[in-house]
Amino acid sequence: MNENVFGGLYKLLAKNKLKELRDELSDMAYPDIAEFIMDMDDDKLAVKIFRILPKDISADVFAYLEADSQTVIVQSITDSEIERLMDDLYVDDAVDFLEEVPANIVRRVLANTDKETRDIINRFLKYPDGCAGSVMTIEMVELHDRSTVAEAIKSIRRSGVDKETIYTCYVRDDKRHLVGTIPLRRLLLNEEDTPLTEIMSDDEQLIYVHTMDDQEHVAAIAKKYDLLSVPVVDKEGRLVGIITIDDIVDIIDEEATEDMEKMALLTPSEDEYLKTNVFTLAKNRVGWLLVLMIASTFTGQIIEGFEAQLATIAGLTACIPMLMGTGGNSGNQVSTLIIRGLALGEVHIKDYFKVLWKEIRVSLMVGILLAVANYGRMFLVRALTGDDVTNSVILVVSISVAAVVVVSKTIGCTLPIVAKILKLDPALMAGPLITTLVDTISLVIYFSLAKALI
Amino acid sequence: MNENVFGGLYKLLAKNKLKELRDELSDMAYPDIAEFIMDMDDDKLAVKIFRILPKDISADVFAYLEADSQTVIVQSITDSEIERLMDDLYVDDAVDFLEEVPANIVRRVLANTDKETRDIINRFLKYPDGCAGSVMTIEMVELHDRSTVAEAIKSIRRSGVDKETIYTCYVRDDKRHLVGTIPLRRLLLNEEDTPLTEIMSDDEQLIYVHTMDDQEHVAAIAKKYDLLSVPVVDKEGRLVGIITIDDIVDIIDEEATEDMEKMALLTPSEDEYLKTNVFTLAKNRVGWLLVLMIASTFTGQIIEGFEAQLATIAGLTACIPMLMGTGGNSGNQVSTLIIRGLALGEVHIKDYFKVLWKEIRVSLMVGILLAVANYGRMFLVRALTGDDVTNSVILVVSISVAAVVVVSKTIGCTLPIVAKILKLDPALMAGPLITTLVDTISLVIYFSLAKALI
Repeated sequence: MNENVFGGLYKLLAKNKLKELRDELSDMAYPDIAEFIMDMDDDKLAVKIFRILPKDISADVFAYLEADSQTVIVQSITDSEIERLMDDLYVDDAVDFLEEVPANIVRRVLANTDKETRDIINRFLKYPDGCAGSVMTIEMVELHDRSTVAEAIKSIRRSGVDKETIYTCYVRDDKRHLVGTIPLRRLLLNEEDTPLTEIMSDDEQLIYVHTMDDQEHVAAIAKKYDLLSVPVVDKEGRLVGIITIDDIVDIIDEEATEDMEKMALLTPSEDEYLKTNVFTLAKNRVGWLLVLMIASTFTGQIIEGFEAQLATIAGLTACIPMLMGTGGNSGNQVSTLIIRGLALGEVHIKDYFKVLWKEIRVSLMVGILLAVANYGRMFLVRALTGDDVTNSVILVVSISVAAVVVVSKTIGCTLPIVAKILKLDPALMAGPLITTLVDTISLVIYFSLAKALI
Repeated sequence: MNENVFGGLYKLLAKNKLKELRDELSDMAYPDIAEFIMDMDDDKLAVKIFRILPKDISADVFAYLEADSQTVIVQSITDSEIERLMDDLYVDDAVDFLEEVPANIVRRVLANTDKETRDIINRFLKYPDGCAGSVMTIEMVELHDRSTVAEAIKSIRRSGVDKETIYTCYVRDDKRHLVGTIPLRRLLLNEEDTPLTEIMSDDEQLIYVHTMDDQEHVAAIAKKYDLLSVPVVDKEGRLVGIITIDDIVDIIDEEATEDMEKMALLTPSEDEYLKTNVFTLAKNRVGWLLVLMIASTFTGQIIEGFEAQLATIAGLTACIPMLMGTGGNSGNQVSTLIIRGLALGEVHIKDYFKVLWKEIRVSLMVGILLAVANYGRMFLVRALTGDDVTNSVILVVSISVAAVVVVSKTIGCTLPIVAKILKLDPALMAGPLITTLVDTISLVIYFSLAKALI
């Protein structure tokens, strides 16, 4: 959406030409209308624009608004407007909205929702965050297993307008058990009198998830089978909802964000960065920083035990940051690859020895190269600055670089897989945690070599 | 797909009951059949299974195979089998496959492809990796702007079987310009004699991308507007292809992986980890490690300049790793949030001062908390180990912790946004690079405070 169009809208708004504004808005895509409403600095204007929207699109636009704008609008509209809104919203959008807004708004909204929808919403709100039940919706096309293609198409034409998607239809038996799926495409391309049971995907081809399955599993299933919607069944195998691809795309983004946050040792947050207050941000960060700061007591102890030698041999202390940095960075590289590989299902626990053998070879190559480069670097620095670093110090540092790279790569590829085996989240075994561990081991290697060779 | 089903398949294969095996396979979903073929250790078995597949599904299964299995199969089948395969594959799947396999295979495959398809494939192979043109396909439903709903549905029924998706139809004028889009749903729910121009999305609602647009932009558009396919037009606005949601999902995963790799200072790789050889892995890693190792020369120089004091004041050296670690970790936390926020479009350049103000408050809270904790920790360690660290050293270290947290958070939130302004990739401004910068600044702060206060 380009700014020019918004410019035109603002002009109409400023001149209070509401009829023209309404016509312009009606021609726009819902996400763009929502963007325009959220662009208002004045809450009253936001509500005003929302109210002039044609009734048949206002719920669609509402679903694209962010929680604070939704709150503002619901606070200003009448009970009957709320009733109409709740009637038009898809259940998953209604649940999303109610999960985000203050409790008093939830109460008022539910009080103005018909009993049937209210019961469904209350049930959905109870599903734990992150499971299939919490992201599904109920507006799917359900067909009966005794129907024919013609009957199915007729039923879709009759009720399709209220469905979130009609492109995959779900076939159920008398007891509401999910017995098959049919893409709309297959319905259209088959003869009218074909029984659904003849063309539906059943048995081995029938893909579904359970209400309590993790949303990450739902995303993996959708990706593997290229589904536009994933059916959700209860313990008895009855169809209770579907999860559509637009929500699956959101899940994929959410899961990647969560992994990145964990890899940076942040407590994953529900909200966008700019919408999170400073106390929550501080709380999400301070825990791991504290743990790692205290863990570094060990590194400190190791250095203290070696302080006498550090004080007498020139150049040894100065190389500590370089060694620790190189170890941390090279461990971080491999743990990132393994964590992502595990998350995308490209690396499995059974691949561990393959991974380890690969990393040993890679780390030897990288380690030797860095050692040689370091030898040259220290030689050059000595020539240029005339510091009194001895050849044996340069040798010890260079050998340590190679050793540290090998050790850190080994740790970096091992820990995420160990976490997976222990059913912990591999994403936690990333850079910062590995760095702290590698730091300690690097220093031990470094000082042992120094003792032995100098 | 559970292992039991594979077990049954293996049994049929071992007994050479090919007819039953074929029947079993025909009932399975394509990705599962592909998984079974890729599960073969013996290439001959893989080819054997591929060959017994019913002709109408073999291309669908082939598209789900990985490049090495595709290569094996194409090497073993006849020219006429290749011709049939290429005829049945969607263009985007054919291009994906040809991009991955050795050049001699590409030549043989293209030699056995009809001229029209070959020309299209050659054109698609020329699009630079990562642009819309390189991931699009041509099997879309094109409708004429003079048609009615009934004519459109008839045309879909006639040609729909060869289309990659029929759920969004594209309306063109006489000159092949894209003039509108219609979801199949809207076609089905409207009267048969409605002209398409009356119900299609046009003008402001018409969403499309250009062939040379970045695939990241395509994904952003699809996410914003919840599209099942994104139309691609050439410079003249003519419809040349579409990108379907299954490919968009892959793009979203790819882009997140690429960002994570860059954040860990890896050169992003095209292939999955287990499929990348050790030389490529080493090459992708060594560059940044070298750069950062050399950059740490500065840190070394700073320490050398302070070596005399470090040697005489107990405890100062021992705290260097803790300070550098805390600085690196806290910078990493915020840069991760900002990089991800920028990638998802939740944070923009114009938000910089909002971000900075937020980070200053967060870092003061976190910094002071850590400083107090550090004071307690060093006090406790001294009491327990009896080391001769003075109170003023403890004070200097604690104040340094707070200062380092504030500085690293400031740098961590600034650099990704600066990168964005300079049109560089913000993902590069992550942990390792920031750590190296923060290391240097931390030491300067630490030593200056030590000089001033001890």
